[in-house]
Formats: sequence, structure tokens, C-alpha cells
Amino acid sequence: MKKADLSHVKALTIDVFGTCVDWRSCIEKALEEAIDVSPAPDYAALAHKWRQGYKEAMQHYASQEESIDPYPNLDDLHRQLLDNLLDKDPEFSHLSTTVDDSTRIKLTQAWHHLTPWQDTNPGLASLSNELGLVTSTLSNGNMRLLVDMKKFAQLPFDIILSSELFGTFKTNSKVYQGAARLLGLPPHSICMVATHLHDLKAAKANGFITAFIPRPKEDKQVLDDEDFQYVDVVADNFVHLAEIFRK
Amino acid sequence: MKKADLSHVKALTIDVFGTCVDWRSCIEKALEEAIDVSPAPDYAALAHKWRQGYKEAMQHYASQEESIDPYPNLDDLHRQLLDNLLDKDPEFSHLSTTVDDSTRIKLTQAWHHLTPWQDTNPGLASLSNELGLVTSTLSNGNMRLLVDMKKFAQLPFDIILSSELFGTFKTNSKVYQGAARLLGLPPHSICMVATHLHDLKAAKANGFITAFIPRPKEDKQVLDDEDFQYVDVVADNFVHLAEIFRK
Repeated sequence: MKKADLSHVKALTIDVFGTCVDWRSCIEKALEEAIDVSPAPDYAALAHKWRQGYKEAMQHYASQEESIDPYPNLDDLHRQLLDNLLDKDPEFSHLSTTVDDSTRIKLTQAWHHLTPWQDTNPGLASLSNELGLVTSTLSNGNMRLLVDMKKFAQLPFDIILSSELFGTFKTNSKVYQGAARLLGLPPHSICMVATHLHDLKAAKANGFITAFIPRPKEDKQVLDDEDFQYVDVVADNFVHLAEIFRK
Repeated sequence: MKKADLSHVKALTIDVFGTCVDWRSCIEKALEEAIDVSPAPDYAALAHKWRQGYKEAMQHYASQEESIDPYPNLDDLHRQLLDNLLDKDPEFSHLSTTVDDSTRIKLTQAWHHLTPWQDTNPGLASLSNELGLVTSTLSNGNMRLLVDMKKFAQLPFDIILSSELFGTFKTNSKVYQGAARLLGLPPHSICMVATHLHDLKAAKANGFITAFIPRPKEDKQVLDDEDFQYVDVVADNFVHLAEIFRK
């Protein structure tokens, strides 16, 4: 892997779910607390399938050329996916009557209250305050969801940018190009940071610098030769990423 | 003035230039440092006319029904207005050859580095952290200008919203309606905070709660009966505004 030139980077656009916050542990815990039955269902499998449905919906939306109208609200989408699992999935439909409407509302809201990885807040603070970089979210979460999450988890982002502003979802090019436009920077002055390789691949195709942060149970953690063609930087976590930029 | 019901307010959309930052002193000082000639020009008058040109441009743009395309960059606008003053205004055109290109670039950049009023940061921090309100900019400054200003002045905003996101400028209704949509809130749950009455009047016409903060040399500071029809709250400053919300 050649050493990436980071001297032109002025801003970081950062994925949130998985990259900054530990959605998996939080959602598994929320499910465990909300669905207190015996025998206990496989909470990890339920969380995984819930997220899987979200990923498939994002891929479907991102592939559409036209702006998505009406633009979906992620709370509505999360609720609909949860209903599908609890009412129709062979593994979980026995829970249908047990999990009532108010519990489902509470579970859907759990996506607003995810906790950061231990390195996220100190790393983001160094990147912004000490190194003077503009730190921005660039997430498929809608603006309101992101601001709630920022407040709850005290994520020290300078600015919140969401796919919502561009009428589509990552990995559609409009999201990366729109972010560059709003940041007033050429793409090669922006580094996309994510734990998901498809996000970095799309950012690189739009001229961004890319940084990969592996996270437990998110995507694959060992890169092959093809991945390294579009990954410029690999950092253990946000504190390590700040060290790399400091050099 | 009847007592406004603030119990439904979940977010504040806040004007920045004049309301949060003391543009006048900063720009006067920047002009004084950059244009060191004898006899000294009237820096206060130059700053005032520069800002006046900006206000007239905003009014012109805001009155257009269609989205503004291409959307103006405020740096370009500030530079063009400065050039007009220094090259064509009878009071200042003797400075035309004295103020070179690099000085004009530096002066234009001064709008990114304005200092907050003394009450702004502690007041905003209380409103966000202690009272749990979402604090958002809602400014005609473009996104990049606002994030630079946020970082420079350490303004503790939760989220940055700019007229730029809506393809027009305040006081066009699209700005207030767009902000409500992105915040995921009905207008009566949002309080527009500004030192400019035309901004509050437009926000009220779009269903917002409104808070007026008088600032030295900004607009008029004593309200008449007509103003009070669309001003719900008058606060001395942001610390006082937090006190009003705390009650």
C-alpha cells in the first residue's frame, strides 16, 4: 500500500452507523430489554436481520437515478422492517402479539440513542480542534436522526450532512458530489471515513480520499488487493486516524 | 405583550450575522488594519455600506419565486460588493489603487472570522445541553461560511442549516418550511431567534414561534405595536433567552 498524500485534506465526511456508533450492541440490548419472553429469542439474529433489511432498502433507493419522492423517513422505514420481522419472519413471528405498538415505537426510537465507540469522541475532537479539519457526518440517516444521535452521544461533529439533503442515499454519486459542493471543496480535499467498503469505493469513484476503520462485526476487516485500490488509509480507530493526520 | 407558550418548542433556528456574532466591530477592525492610509477613511461607514449592499442583494434574491441558479457564493458576493465600493463609490473610490487584490481577498475572508457576543456561547450551550433544545443556525451565510465561523468562534450549535440548502435566501418561505422539514418538527415547535425583525415576521408567517434579541446598531431596538404582533419573546441576550426557556 502506497503512502497516501493527506496534505490537501481539509474536511472529513464520516459515516455514522457502525463507524462512529456501536449500533449492534445497542440494538441487541434494546431488543433484550423490550422483548422479555421465555424462551428468549435470538436477539443478535433479530438485530442483524433488522439492519440487513435497512441495508437492502438503501441499496434499492441508491440505485434509482431520479430523486426519491417522497423521501423516506428512516423511523418509518425502521418500523416497517421491524413489523415485517415480528409479523412475518418464520424465526420471529411467534413474537407478533407479544410485542405491542408502544414497544415497537420505543424500539424504533432506539436508533436515535446509540453509543459511540470509545475512540470516536476523543478522535473526532482531535481531528477538529487540534488538526483544524472540518468534521462532517455523511450518513444515510436523516438530518433529525443524526442531530438526535449527535446530542445523545455527544459526538463532536462540526457539521451534519445527510443523504437526505441530496434526495437519494449513499452510494449514489449525488451524495458525495453534493457534500463536496456544500463544503466548498474539491473532492481530493475531502476524506471519506467509513467501516463499509462499498461506501469508500463510491467515494473514491467521486474523487475523494478514503479512510477505512475496521469495526467488530461490521463488514470484512482484512482487505484484499482489490479493496486497496480504493482505500488510501487504514486506521485502527479515530484516535489512530488523528495520529495519521498529525504526521 | 401576552406571555408566549414555549412548552411545545423543541428546536431553535437562529440567525447568525448580528444575532450571534458582532460583524460590525470585526469588519470595522479588519478594514482599519487592512487599509492603513492617511487621512483615514470612515471605516464605520465603509463597513456599513458593505453590509448594506449585502442586505439589498439578499432582498432581491429572496423575492424571486424560482430557485436561484447558479446559487451565489457569499465570498464572491462580498468581494463584488467590496470592489464596487472601492472602485466606484464616490466616498471610497480614492482607495481603489491602494487596496490591492490580496488585501481584498483577506477582507472578504474576514466574514469567516467574526467573534461572538459575550453571551452567545454560554447561552447557546445552556439552551442545547441543559434545556435539551436542538440549536440550529438558520442563516443566509452558505454552509461552508457557517462551519468556518462555527469553528473560529467555537459556536456550540448542534446543527448548521443555511438558506443554501433550499436554493433561495431568507425571508423566502421556502427557507423556514425547509428547516422545519429537516428538523422533523411542525413550525409551532420551532422558535426563530433573530435581531432582525423582517426575519421574525417571515418566520411567524410560516407558523414559527419568534424571539427577538436586540443588538447594538442592528435594526431598531424598541418594538412598536405592529412588531409585537409577530414577536413572541424579547430577550436581552442568549443567556436571558435560556432563562426564559428555563421557566
